[in-house]
Amino acid sequence: MRASDFVRQERLWDRLMAMAELGATEKGGVNRQALTLEDGRARRLLADWATARGFRVYQDAIGNLFVRRPGRDDGLPPVTTGSHLDTQPTGGRFDGVYGVLAGFEVLEALEDGGIATTHPVEVVAWTNEEGARFAPTAMGSGVYVGKLPLGSALDTVDVDGVTVADALAAVTAMTPDAEERPLGSPVAAYIEAHIEQGPVLVTAGETIGAVTSIQSQNCYQIEIHGEEAHAGTTPRANRSDAVLAAVEAIAKLEQAALDDADAMRFTVGRFIAEPGSPNTVPSHVSFTIDLRHPDNAEINRMAREIEETIPECAEKRRCRAEVTCTSAVPVTPFAEELVDKVDRVRRDLGLPGRKMPSGAGHDAMYIAPMAPSGMIFVPCVDGISHNEAEDALPEDVAAGACVLADCLADLAKG
Amino acid sequence: MRASDFVRQERLWDRLMAMAELGATEKGGVNRQALTLEDGRARRLLADWATARGFRVYQDAIGNLFVRRPGRDDGLPPVTTGSHLDTQPTGGRFDGVYGVLAGFEVLEALEDGGIATTHPVEVVAWTNEEGARFAPTAMGSGVYVGKLPLGSALDTVDVDGVTVADALAAVTAMTPDAEERPLGSPVAAYIEAHIEQGPVLVTAGETIGAVTSIQSQNCYQIEIHGEEAHAGTTPRANRSDAVLAAVEAIAKLEQAALDDADAMRFTVGRFIAEPGSPNTVPSHVSFTIDLRHPDNAEINRMAREIEETIPECAEKRRCRAEVTCTSAVPVTPFAEELVDKVDRVRRDLGLPGRKMPSGAGHDAMYIAPMAPSGMIFVPCVDGISHNEAEDALPEDVAAGACVLADCLADLAKG
Repeated sequence: MRASDFVRQERLWDRLMAMAELGATEKGGVNRQALTLEDGRARRLLADWATARGFRVYQDAIGNLFVRRPGRDDGLPPVTTGSHLDTQPTGGRFDGVYGVLAGFEVLEALEDGGIATTHPVEVVAWTNEEGARFAPTAMGSGVYVGKLPLGSALDTVDVDGVTVADALAAVTAMTPDAEERPLGSPVAAYIEAHIEQGPVLVTAGETIGAVTSIQSQNCYQIEIHGEEAHAGTTPRANRSDAVLAAVEAIAKLEQAALDDADAMRFTVGRFIAEPGSPNTVPSHVSFTIDLRHPDNAEINRMAREIEETIPECAEKRRCRAEVTCTSAVPVTPFAEELVDKVDRVRRDLGLPGRKMPSGAGHDAMYIAPMAPSGMIFVPCVDGISHNEAEDALPEDVAAGACVLADCLADLAKG
Repeated sequence: MRASDFVRQERLWDRLMAMAELGATEKGGVNRQALTLEDGRARRLLADWATARGFRVYQDAIGNLFVRRPGRDDGLPPVTTGSHLDTQPTGGRFDGVYGVLAGFEVLEALEDGGIATTHPVEVVAWTNEEGARFAPTAMGSGVYVGKLPLGSALDTVDVDGVTVADALAAVTAMTPDAEERPLGSPVAAYIEAHIEQGPVLVTAGETIGAVTSIQSQNCYQIEIHGEEAHAGTTPRANRSDAVLAAVEAIAKLEQAALDDADAMRFTVGRFIAEPGSPNTVPSHVSFTIDLRHPDNAEINRMAREIEETIPECAEKRRCRAEVTCTSAVPVTPFAEELVDKVDRVRRDLGLPGRKMPSGAGHDAMYIAPMAPSGMIFVPCVDGISHNEAEDALPEDVAAGACVLADCLADLAKG
């Protein structure tokens, strides 16, 4: 019997739907932003399920939560899987949480099948992958591998001025039974299951993607400082209008990002104007840019455009710009042997699929440099994600868990 | 003795500084937005001062607050002065409140001088002139004259969903001693004192502006509806990006507003993007346009540009636009005899000044069609207003109150 023979579609689906209730929105989506009460409840629920199955639970200084099934040689580094429990403000029921619960389903399948492994097998819920409330994205995995200093992560504030340190203290207090785990403990191998969040698999009618790489991503936080003035009396020549400076810069950058291949992803997701009064010339704009491309050289070209265009547009209008690159992650290739393993297991299980790159960033990109890493994609309906309408089919999410089960069992047995 | 002989600079200044404490900001400005607790406190303070001097206090259904000094023929309509007590979110210590307190200083001067008038003289604090919390601007005076329906004003909500009706009920409960006054009671004449909020007087070294007209102003509320999507995986061709649609529209409209004379005032004071997550394509933008010009024809030209350009830019990006003109006020000329009277009194008092148009809108523009109306401008430091740094000199504000006193005494005696 293979580990995948013990994967139970209904149990996995029920757990997904139970998690979807935590932060459920009226439109059928989920708002469970990082380190909120709802995030704490999701972590608590995972810990309860783990404890009920006799698994031990750990958490580290940035709140990454680990569930462990021991190995025969329990001193070996674990074979790890997982993803994240936090969502976008208007997120869906699968992004992130699917990877955590598919991993947990594998632990249960191994347990149900009485399948012992040499390495321990662990499921991790990385803290704050979305970066919606606290920048940057993938904070938990970034801190875990030392790419992001713990201190600066803890000092990060949300728009209300709440620090990660304070929000984290409140949330980890909900899992006091979790044992302490140091940051950066070695991992033997890492495989993350996730919905594709794009249209490739669903369009092709396929079930499994063996992910070859993650495209490069730069994130920017931009502040433009102008001067408040009366909208009726202040001549254009005397204005320092932060909104018009930001608008011109964004319009120019959008033009610079245009490409025939439609491969550049240029997104201004947050734009806040202050003081926000209709008849006052705005003195301050804060906005973000999320930039992605499968080719490092193209990202670097746009990075130069951003660094030149924004201050130029600001100065022209007697404003001052601060452009901060909050994260810059080049293309992350996954370990060839893991990509091949996922693709081979997929074939052995008779599932249609392909090797493919990932358009989205994932925690796996931080783990890839410290341990052989890979990812498994399953389709999502219409390719829609980061949207309350995000959806997936029970048979597809179960298929992904089956591939994950056989991959992890194989890796952990060795 | 003239009424102006009894104007006391120190008393007026002290009252201005007492009001400035209600909603005082760290930077020396004032945040006393309409129908907040701070606004209620300012209204309460005015009512207390009035009662202490034996004046009766009234308020109407939209919360306009009146202080009355009776006339010999008390059945005649009052000669009225006043302005507003609410401020911008980052407002100053003089915009609005100066007109109310200069008016109150005149009531006290008449009282101190034992000067009886034939008409009653009233000071009014119009509700929500700024329109910062609740659109549109000049709500109280607009409702008073029937230009704005009371019902729609009461139903207006702020960004937190609070209605004017609810906020008004809380604030008027703080002045339960104010007697009821019907909307639209006749006014014999109206003169409003105000800081100029622009650079003309201060640059010329003059003290008094006799305001000839108010330039035209159109206000717009624009909603752009797109579709949320993942910033990393969604191709440009599949996006409905509300921020990029808004940005292109604003950039184009700014170009259309450019004029050699620098007379067009084009301001996007509020811009809110939702859901506001850095890695989600934004599905909704809400922004405002404040448009002003001394020439009605030029406003109409830009109005057409706004109504065409915004839906065009939205459709191009598979978004949907709603453009609502929330108010459209053509050029308001003031009564020639009042403009002349202000200018003559100014000369009689030996004060340097001029006749000049107003760049900003004021409550006087709503009163002008129902009663002979005029305005008195005093300089503000560096022409700065709608800014916490807004400032004015004690001798200038007193000079304005002197001109107001002699004008009102003259108008009310007849």
